[in-house]
Amino acid sequence: MFTSDYLRELSDKVITGLASSSEADRLFAPVRYIMSIGGKRLRPVMCLMACNLFKDKIDEAVMPAVGIEVFHNFTLIHDDIIDDAGMRRGSPTVHSKWGSRQAILSGDAMAFIAVECIGQAPEKALAKTLRLFYRTAIEVCTGQQLDLDYEKKGVVSEEEYLRMIELKTAVLIAASLKTGAIVGEAPEKDQELLYEFGRCLGIAFQVQDDVLDTYGDTRMFGKKTGSDIVANKKTYLLVKALEMAGGERLRQLRKLLEAEVQDPEEKVTEVRKIYDELEIRLQAENLAYDYFNRAFQALDQVSVKAERKGELKQLAVNLIGRVK
Amino acid sequence: MFTSDYLRELSDKVITGLASSSEADRLFAPVRYIMSIGGKRLRPVMCLMACNLFKDKIDEAVMPAVGIEVFHNFTLIHDDIIDDAGMRRGSPTVHSKWGSRQAILSGDAMAFIAVECIGQAPEKALAKTLRLFYRTAIEVCTGQQLDLDYEKKGVVSEEEYLRMIELKTAVLIAASLKTGAIVGEAPEKDQELLYEFGRCLGIAFQVQDDVLDTYGDTRMFGKKTGSDIVANKKTYLLVKALEMAGGERLRQLRKLLEAEVQDPEEKVTEVRKIYDELEIRLQAENLAYDYFNRAFQALDQVSVKAERKGELKQLAVNLIGRVK
Repeated sequence: MFTSDYLRELSDKVITGLASSSEADRLFAPVRYIMSIGGKRLRPVMCLMACNLFKDKIDEAVMPAVGIEVFHNFTLIHDDIIDDAGMRRGSPTVHSKWGSRQAILSGDAMAFIAVECIGQAPEKALAKTLRLFYRTAIEVCTGQQLDLDYEKKGVVSEEEYLRMIELKTAVLIAASLKTGAIVGEAPEKDQELLYEFGRCLGIAFQVQDDVLDTYGDTRMFGKKTGSDIVANKKTYLLVKALEMAGGERLRQLRKLLEAEVQDPEEKVTEVRKIYDELEIRLQAENLAYDYFNRAFQALDQVSVKAERKGELKQLAVNLIGRVK
Repeated sequence: MFTSDYLRELSDKVITGLASSSEADRLFAPVRYIMSIGGKRLRPVMCLMACNLFKDKIDEAVMPAVGIEVFHNFTLIHDDIIDDAGMRRGSPTVHSKWGSRQAILSGDAMAFIAVECIGQAPEKALAKTLRLFYRTAIEVCTGQQLDLDYEKKGVVSEEEYLRMIELKTAVLIAASLKTGAIVGEAPEKDQELLYEFGRCLGIAFQVQDDVLDTYGDTRMFGKKTGSDIVANKKTYLLVKALEMAGGERLRQLRKLLEAEVQDPEEKVTEVRKIYDELEIRLQAENLAYDYFNRAFQALDQVSVKAERKGELKQLAVNLIGRVK
């Protein structure tokens, strides 16, 4: 029903509409580009599905849903500058195509296009939708800040790591669902339950993403496994391994992190061996399943008939399905 | 009545409130810094004065006024990265203190703090205030885009230049006034008149700023005169001179622009000599006065008693006063 093609078309229309004045052409070219190079449109789809739990007519949720997707893509443009990433979804990043100055400016414009879309929520839902949006946006910035801080920090606790991914990833998924619920005029309690569903799903999703980067099937997962290990990225696996390893094993792990990478595959094999000895994968998967279960429990409590929740449940199950 | 001290205190309170969670300390330190290093608080003061034309109680306009100032300072952080400026208001710029990555991220957070403040407009004014805000924000980005485009462009027409400063500078001053009028529940017609007052004032202000950079009294104006000439900045004076000069004089001007600067003072003297021969200063001042007059005409038509407009008029007169 809510295909990502439909949403892609819609966001294209929004962007094209905004860029109708030729004087802003250079400003909006990177905006059109980042919106066109793919992405699963997970957030807007979830927003529309959440609205649909409570209302058959979901057209009032469409612009806020697009706004959330525009916001998400805005964060990708600026994060890619900050992380100096060259590729995104198999295509060159905005700043590597247009330079950082243009990427900063077009990203900024995009932040306000997102506000423009959110601002088209129905008037009776506007104040609440807007408040949720800017609070979430500031939380996402805080998550990216923690990510930057942790780069320089030697020891990051499991708790700190989970808080970081909660802010950087999970709260936007949670807000997508809650936005749909607000526009759908859901009872307050159901709005909160859907937020919790999204928050837990988002954390599970990210932990599982960490597992897949190290243990996933390259053909299925689409990116080379082990890239996080090569880059010393502070994933759940690494954070947990540093916490659990002791004595000789800890020294060995630290040595692998500090050494200059001569042979990436060898580094991946060595680090993975330590993970295996510590049963890190199992613990990560248990944690992810735990959060998936909490997500489903929240969804189950939402006060609409079970058959209305089918699509949303299926979407979540498909996300879990990636593990296998 | 609306002292900038009062507004500085207020915006400090807003920023401190937001930064109460220690996990976001690093994110908000640059925000507090840019808000603390000065600025005339012209925009929020104008917003409150505009509201006060129609209402004695102006407290509902305070948060939107702060939001406009936060937005303005957000643009300064990102513009300074884009222009690679080392100093701002006599202090180091955010990115030269904390690095570009931090400046991008803290700027982003600030954009949403601005939305948060705007979002606290009274509910009946919210939709209109918000719409004005995001449209203006996108226009300001477009103005900065034109400024970037014109750096690379050989010939910029007077019309193009005026459009650029309208978008980059004037529309935000206009929007500040209109926001105050909306919150003050002014008649639609008066809202538009105040927008026009601010738009014309903003253009006049910027053209006059160009004149002062080349002809101002260093002691009075606070920055070294001639810096625009040394940097080949496309000011109204240069755009107009390139348009009017012909033959030998045009060749000479182009040579001065292309040559490597050995002696900055000599370059300033030479370029200023060409400006003088073409009576550029006079034309710029005439244009600025023309826009000032249009501004005052708009203000005069606002449907409140003349004595209520005293403060706003005085503020505008003080801005003109800078010329002399």
